Amino acid sequence: MKSFASDNYSGVHPEIIEALNRANHEHMGSYGADEITQRTIGKFKDFFGDDIEVFFVYNGTGANVLGLRALTQSFHSIICSELAHINVDESTAPEKFTGCKLIGIPTTDGKIYPDQVEQKIQRLGDQHHPQARVISISQSTEYSTVYSVEEIKSLSAVAKKYNLFLHMDGARISNAAVSLEENFRVFTKDAGVDVLSFGGAKNGMMFGEAVIFFNKALTQHFPYIRKQGMQLHSKMRFISAQFEALLSNDLWKRNAIHANAMAKKLEQGLRQIPQIKITQRVDGNGVFAILPKVIIEDLQHELYFYVWNDRTNECRLMCSFDTREEEIKRFVEKAKALCSAL
Amino acid sequence: MKSFASDNYSGVHPEIIEALNRANHEHMGSYGADEITQRTIGKFKDFFGDDIEVFFVYNGTGANVLGLRALTQSFHSIICSELAHINVDESTAPEKFTGCKLIGIPTTDGKIYPDQVEQKIQRLGDQHHPQARVISISQSTEYSTVYSVEEIKSLSAVAKKYNLFLHMDGARISNAAVSLEENFRVFTKDAGVDVLSFGGAKNGMMFGEAVIFFNKALTQHFPYIRKQGMQLHSKMRFISAQFEALLSNDLWKRNAIHANAMAKKLEQGLRQIPQIKITQRVDGNGVFAILPKVIIEDLQHELYFYVWNDRTNECRLMCSFDTREEEIKRFVEKAKALCSAL
Amino acid sequence: MKSFASDNYSGVHPEIIEALNRANHEHMGSYGADEITQRTIGKFKDFFGDDIEVFFVYNGTGANVLGLRALTQSFHSIICSELAHINVDESTAPEKFTGCKLIGIPTTDGKIYPDQVEQKIQRLGDQHHPQARVISISQSTEYSTVYSVEEIKSLSAVAKKYNLFLHMDGARISNAAVSLEENFRVFTKDAGVDVLSFGGAKNGMMFGEAVIFFNKALTQHFPYIRKQGMQLHSKMRFISAQFEALLSNDLWKRNAIHANAMAKKLEQGLRQIPQIKITQRVDGNGVFAILPKVIIEDLQHELYFYVWNDRTNECRLMCSFDTREEEIKRFVEKAKALCSAL
Amino acid sequence: MKSFASDNYSGVHPEIIEALNRANHEHMGSYGADEITQRTIGKFKDFFGDDIEVFFVYNGTGANVLGLRALTQSFHSIICSELAHINVDESTAPEKFTGCKLIGIPTTDGKIYPDQVEQKIQRLGDQHHPQARVISISQSTEYSTVYSVEEIKSLSAVAKKYNLFLHMDGARISNAAVSLEENFRVFTKDAGVDVLSFGGAKNGMMFGEAVIFFNKALTQHFPYIRKQGMQLHSKMRFISAQFEALLSNDLWKRNAIHANAMAKKLEQGLRQIPQIKITQRVDGNGVFAILPKVIIEDLQHELYFYVWNDRTNECRLMCSFDTREEEIKRFVEKAKALCSAL
Repeated sequence: MKSFASDNYSGVHPEIIEALNRANHEHMGSYGADEITQRTIGKFKDFFGDDIEVFFVYNGTGANVLGLRALTQSFHSIICSELAHINVDESTAPEKFTGCKLIGIPTTDGKIYPDQVEQKIQRLGDQHHPQARVISISQSTEYSTVYSVEEIKSLSAVAKKYNLFLHMDGARISNAAVSLEENFRVFTKDAGVDVLSFGGAKNGMMFGEAVIFFNKALTQHFPYIRKQGMQLHSKMRFISAQFEALLSNDLWKRNAIHANAMAKKLEQGLRQIPQIKITQRVDGNGVFAILPKVIIEDLQHELYFYVWNDRTNECRLMCSFDTREEEIKRFVEKAKALCSAL
Repeated sequence: MKSFASDNYSGVHPEIIEALNRANHEHMGSYGADEITQRTIGKFKDFFGDDIEVFFVYNGTGANVLGLRALTQSFHSIICSELAHINVDESTAPEKFTGCKLIGIPTTDGKIYPDQVEQKIQRLGDQHHPQARVISISQSTEYSTVYSVEEIKSLSAVAKKYNLFLHMDGARISNAAVSLEENFRVFTKDAGVDVLSFGGAKNGMMFGEAVIFFNKALTQHFPYIRKQGMQLHSKMRFISAQFEALLSNDLWKRNAIHANAMAKKLEQGLRQIPQIKITQRVDGNGVFAILPKVIIEDLQHELYFYVWNDRTNECRLMCSFDTREEEIKRFVEKAKALCSAL
Repeated sequence: MKSFASDNYSGVHPEIIEALNRANHEHMGSYGADEITQRTIGKFKDFFGDDIEVFFVYNGTGANVLGLRALTQSFHSIICSELAHINVDESTAPEKFTGCKLIGIPTTDGKIYPDQVEQKIQRLGDQHHPQARVISISQSTEYSTVYSVEEIKSLSAVAKKYNLFLHMDGARISNAAVSLEENFRVFTKDAGVDVLSFGGAKNGMMFGEAVIFFNKALTQHFPYIRKQGMQLHSKMRFISAQFEALLSNDLWKRNAIHANAMAKKLEQGLRQIPQIKITQRVDGNGVFAILPKVIIEDLQHELYFYVWNDRTNECRLMCSFDTREEEIKRFVEKAKALCSAL
Repeated sequence: MKSFASDNYSGVHPEIIEALNRANHEHMGSYGADEITQRTIGKFKDFFGDDIEVFFVYNGTGANVLGLRALTQSFHSIICSELAHINVDESTAPEKFTGCKLIGIPTTDGKIYPDQVEQKIQRLGDQHHPQARVISISQSTEYSTVYSVEEIKSLSAVAKKYNLFLHMDGARISNAAVSLEENFRVFTKDAGVDVLSFGGAKNGMMFGEAVIFFNKALTQHFPYIRKQGMQLHSKMRFISAQFEALLSNDLWKRNAIHANAMAKKLEQGLRQIPQIKITQRVDGNGVFAILPKVIIEDLQHELYFYVWNDRTNECRLMCSFDTREEEIKRFVEKAKALCSAL
């Protein structure tokens, strides 16, 4: 039943369910013209300050693609990690919807660095060449590592130097915040991020994601872009109510603290097994580890997980708000048993 | 609190909420690889037969645009009513995502007819001209009228004659089925429809819509189209569980019967007021009526509704699964009082 | 050999050929970085004033589509005549490349009028609805009629009232100028046009069209748009040299005067035949006439022409810079003979 | 006046000009419905066999992008060299027009190799991931190197293994054929290429490029794709006449032999200068060389050329059909003089 397959295999946190029930009350204006949505935007402002704009959409791909669309013209390019979700896990939605080229930078830790980015910013002003316009980073990354505040600021400095924007895919932003022990604002708005995809589904929500603009000038056309992007929900209150709950009583933090802690436990357990090699820092809620090929299938029967890299047998083990310590234990024991039998 | 503004101002039916609660159980495969989704597809097959393909998406615009994308190449055109949701209420999502031209046929009752359609099918084989490829109809229509089975068959005959497809926007398909007193299949698959957007949100669901293909050959690329269209939900079980509930115990029918009946009651009430003119047949769950301009604002304070046509003061009054008879009564009384004071 | 089929059946004017030969001299910068291009832009400025921007592209469809792209965002709509070249003769290039919806206004004379346009400007500010952004007119029209200066100004007034742009497809702008006996500037820039496609191929050139911006703020991204639109010629001097010749020694005017005069002669001849009905004012270089169905094929053997409307047997007879008076005569005689035999 | 800047700085070969003059004769059907176009297609069939389809377009970007469009759906990816013209010199036209992702493989010699390509073909059948569909190579490459027949066959084998297509950008295909001493067919159709952009402008033409399909099933929609892509010329005979001349009397070969020979001479001259380092094999008509930074500007005054890589001072020296031996001599002398003064 349970698994380490993905943080979207989990269900919905009970406090979110309660919020949905509370929101299910009589008629309300649709498409965001309701009091819950207004209240929830206020919640976001409590975290990020008043000078932001918040738009709710259906999912992470929608949030990323529409956010990038708001930052670009079709002749632009977007610089990101070769492993970025926008580069390898969103079909060609970014290209199709924005027209832009994505330029993927090879990475070993999921992050990109200023020098690498700067090398990809070429031929500005040359009509023949895709014009670099956005640097996009994931926080936490696809490798579950987390950018430090300084690392983000240094990327923002490159962006500003060349008149580019800085975009953040925050599908797992709560896990990053917990890992950094910082509030959201410090490593987003205050670090120079222009547009943020603020994720919910991987931290206990049923559906919904927020696009947050720290530069209000960029939002002029966004209502049209969202509608055209098929991401405007009619019964909007049922997205906003979930975010309201997530941002209340520290639910976002409680969930992320738990998921991160479970990942740490899992890491500690696996590190005791000599045949297993942890490949990445465990900053967030995922553990990456090279397992002996022969044990993978058996171990997947215990709790399912994905092989991340077929050639190296690197596997991805994602923890969630609902991962239980006993599951970690059970999984580590099984891994130990399988490995000791090799 | 309550209103006649739109059937998406209403909340979620309690049986749907229950289904969401039931689905919120441990981990399940994401993106549709879960048992609830498989079971729900089976439910659809009970209605439409086994030789169909069902894909869940987020909303009506997504269902329409992606369904049309599956039927077209970018140099095609799509023939529809000038009032069709795809033509006037989905921004330019259809054009942007499919590349196609939409050709809107003027309509007085929300429907389009074979002769009109045939006149728009021009210059087939001429590389300079947009090539007609799809006829798209809404059932029930944006005027809440309902195509008869014969009317749909006659449009299908035109489609077949010219090698076009027939697409149906069924955002309010349950209201149409109840109005026709037919099962879904008779006026869709059996009448020659190729692709159907099966709506849920306007009949008591929280979010989610289904794209149903009656021609399986058309679905070859659809998983990619859905993902690229940003309409693939990770925690898919929470869409399918809603549809499972909607299709169980006649919930779809009970809701639609109620909404249609309320519209009828509203029509009957308003017909007694000489200053008010009902403008359309009330087949489904909406009433269109020309009101005296001076009473509109006061009446909107009683129960809100939209002015459909600023020039004629035609107004749209939508009933929903949760409209109460007392609300109809109260509204009609108020209208009477306001009109008698003129 | 000769025909009335289209003004693009004709060849290239000898003075254009000479210009191409003169331009074929040693090496020159590519993509417009050459002296001929600079000189030719100066020629355009002689006609339109210094505060314009001129970009050369390959053809009329390219000029129209890229000009419209410069004026719009993908959620906009473009209002034009139902018969506009952009609406019916450019495949769905405008939709595919701009994402916009085209809204065609029914027309009997090829023109659109302020009242009609104003009715199509609806729901501004409503995120669900395509946002009207451009009025596009053809001068001369697809019916070879010509807008008066006042008619254009009245459309420009509507555009300004609603913050729209006015675009002109000037594939046959020289024929219009000659018909109006006005210089280009009076009925374009001075009448409120924002962007103009200035045609060459239908007036004696081999290839090439110019996009002229009267509002320089709109050109910021145009070099990228042109390149991305696959319309940037490497050996640019061979487009500009043609335009230089066309704009020199009144070649544009001599060609258009001749073509228009030939159309007038053709009209006069055909008016003498009672079985033939001229259907449109002959302002420019084309004659539209309803012919007896039975004579059409025989007459096409004399000099080929196209049937414009299959249902009414309305035919289009286009004259060109190289149409000879004897061909007109021969054609009219033949028509007479065929008709008198009916 | 002359330069090594680009083979598109050169003018038009006199035999091409003559052909344009000959084609300028009375009226002919437009858009390809003329005898010259038919005859020229026959010329191509003499080279490639009868079972091909030939479409003329305006330029290389148009040929590449539309050819790729014919091979792909919008959720596909295209694998090419990181330096490919389609990847870095066509703005984002490929992404915008096809929707596809371009995956650039790092290269030191301008070529890509089977192993590299195979590593980029990942996650086939996974709806989340861009689906590899085309391998695109340039022949000769952007580094003026030439793939051997065997190299192309080995890439074709990879394509076939994974059900991909092989596309060739032949902007300089004549230079490649001369270098290989093979006829066109051997290293295109017979080596497994599916679609070829056959270039003209860089080998003495004024404008125009041909898209050649070796798999006729792929051309079903191409007339619409070309029109929608704004690449359908009205006076088509003036493109085809140029190709007819190019393919007659070995003009293509004479021009390419000359240009390649000039590049060889230039290479030989520069190799005598110790301060200059030739960086690439000189297979075709271009020489790549690292020059001492301090001499570059002075040498550009002699005959202009482009710096290819700002960081390494690698320069690109392109020869053309009209490069004269005395220019090579003069340039080498000047380089020698400047270097000896260091």
